[in-house]
Amino acid sequence: MNKEQIFEQIKKKETFLCVGLDTDLKKIPEHLHEYDDPIFEFNKAIINATAPYCVAFKPNLAFYECEGVDGWKSFEKTVAYIKQRYPDQFIIADAKRGDIGNTSEMYARSFFDGFKLDAVTVAPYMGEDSVKPFLIYPNKWVILLALTSNNGSADFQLIKDENGERMFEKVLRISQSWATDNEMMYVVGATQGELFKDVRKIAPNHFLLVPGVGAQGGSLEEVCKYGMNSKCGLLVNSSRGIIYADNSDNYAQSAGEEAKKLQLEMKEMLGKYLI
Amino acid sequence: MNKEQIFEQIKKKETFLCVGLDTDLKKIPEHLHEYDDPIFEFNKAIINATAPYCVAFKPNLAFYECEGVDGWKSFEKTVAYIKQRYPDQFIIADAKRGDIGNTSEMYARSFFDGFKLDAVTVAPYMGEDSVKPFLIYPNKWVILLALTSNNGSADFQLIKDENGERMFEKVLRISQSWATDNEMMYVVGATQGELFKDVRKIAPNHFLLVPGVGAQGGSLEEVCKYGMNSKCGLLVNSSRGIIYADNSDNYAQSAGEEAKKLQLEMKEMLGKYLI
Repeated sequence: MNKEQIFEQIKKKETFLCVGLDTDLKKIPEHLHEYDDPIFEFNKAIINATAPYCVAFKPNLAFYECEGVDGWKSFEKTVAYIKQRYPDQFIIADAKRGDIGNTSEMYARSFFDGFKLDAVTVAPYMGEDSVKPFLIYPNKWVILLALTSNNGSADFQLIKDENGERMFEKVLRISQSWATDNEMMYVVGATQGELFKDVRKIAPNHFLLVPGVGAQGGSLEEVCKYGMNSKCGLLVNSSRGIIYADNSDNYAQSAGEEAKKLQLEMKEMLGKYLI
Repeated sequence: MNKEQIFEQIKKKETFLCVGLDTDLKKIPEHLHEYDDPIFEFNKAIINATAPYCVAFKPNLAFYECEGVDGWKSFEKTVAYIKQRYPDQFIIADAKRGDIGNTSEMYARSFFDGFKLDAVTVAPYMGEDSVKPFLIYPNKWVILLALTSNNGSADFQLIKDENGERMFEKVLRISQSWATDNEMMYVVGATQGELFKDVRKIAPNHFLLVPGVGAQGGSLEEVCKYGMNSKCGLLVNSSRGIIYADNSDNYAQSAGEEAKKLQLEMKEMLGKYLI
């Protein structure tokens, strides 16, 4: 999927929501444990309930890895299910990988050749040759961490260099010599508020993957006010706020309702801020 | 395993070698493909051949992940094999993980609770709350990326702030408020030469995990000259130089010989530089 195709989906569905599949065995409704693969059962129901209101799904690898081999099977089945049933959805592996060249090659092979995902989140600390192996796959995306949503983001990402340029700005600037805005997006946390203005000064045309709305407290309005561009340029993720909206047998319906609420807000934001 | 116990092994075996298990199905000898689990067969032979000459093994997760569910099974079996057969070996998951708190918790659970590994490599870009969840496990280690061995390390790790402090120095300094030198090590690439002096100014007592000797061209003598401390303080990793020393049926014996060569050099270095 290229940038234009993502924007087409956003316009058609009037949403730029990404549903985060951070599926934790300890948090899903009790009765699902009767199934052979409770994680997959949960995901299927969440996917079906939320698909009308989102344009992307983002399984978070940590939650699958932590169940070992079974978790990887659940991940594999979840991705295959989305691809077969909802081929227009953009699928992001939230993996935050990044290693020396020959190792990043293996990660890229795994996510793009193996699972056929559309995008993978990548950590920038190791620099160009840790990111480039992910960029050789046509029509696939690297989503590079720039300014994350957590408190610790201030520890290193806001450090200023001799010329006053902050680390996240440097990541945004330097990485643009590695790839175009049709191959790379950036992670910018919804909790960063007005800093979206600074991000847009350096990366006006890139899509931003924005976690941190919902449980982490980011404001959708602020993100849109400072971050939206003429192709929307935003994929706003919500995980816990949607998938754990309700712990009863009614969990999928509640997840659908939460996703719909966000979709309606996003529709309003598109009317207000899409240039 | 604590710091003292690692040093005991180093003294006893006169080596501080870590053997990197970057096992690539495309690179292992042809005849192993007859086995149900060629990766595990390869690893077993390499482990048995090199164990006398090393104190640690470092499976690189990318190489297992990229084979999907089968790869995770090979990883699981490899770790179980080392733990059962060589309980004195320190086992590092080279995973370079790091995410917001609740996600890092899941990664930590996976590597420490699930696989019972001794250490995991973690990326620092997301700051304190991305690292801390790995630190709640007693007798387990975080190995934080500081100054890596690849070319791209210069892109961000060497950037100076307003006061002239470089990013890797900042990572070394700030992270010491999160954990002691009995809980945290740092990755410093063997290709960084004299920069080891600067690392040791900030982190004189920490163990350093040092990749980049061998295929990547780092010098063992330089690493020891500038990086060794009174408890050795070094785990020097070689992966490709050992495990792919020979592609014939004789691969394990050749791997053992390469490991032994490094062990003999390390013995000499311990005599020369251990204070």
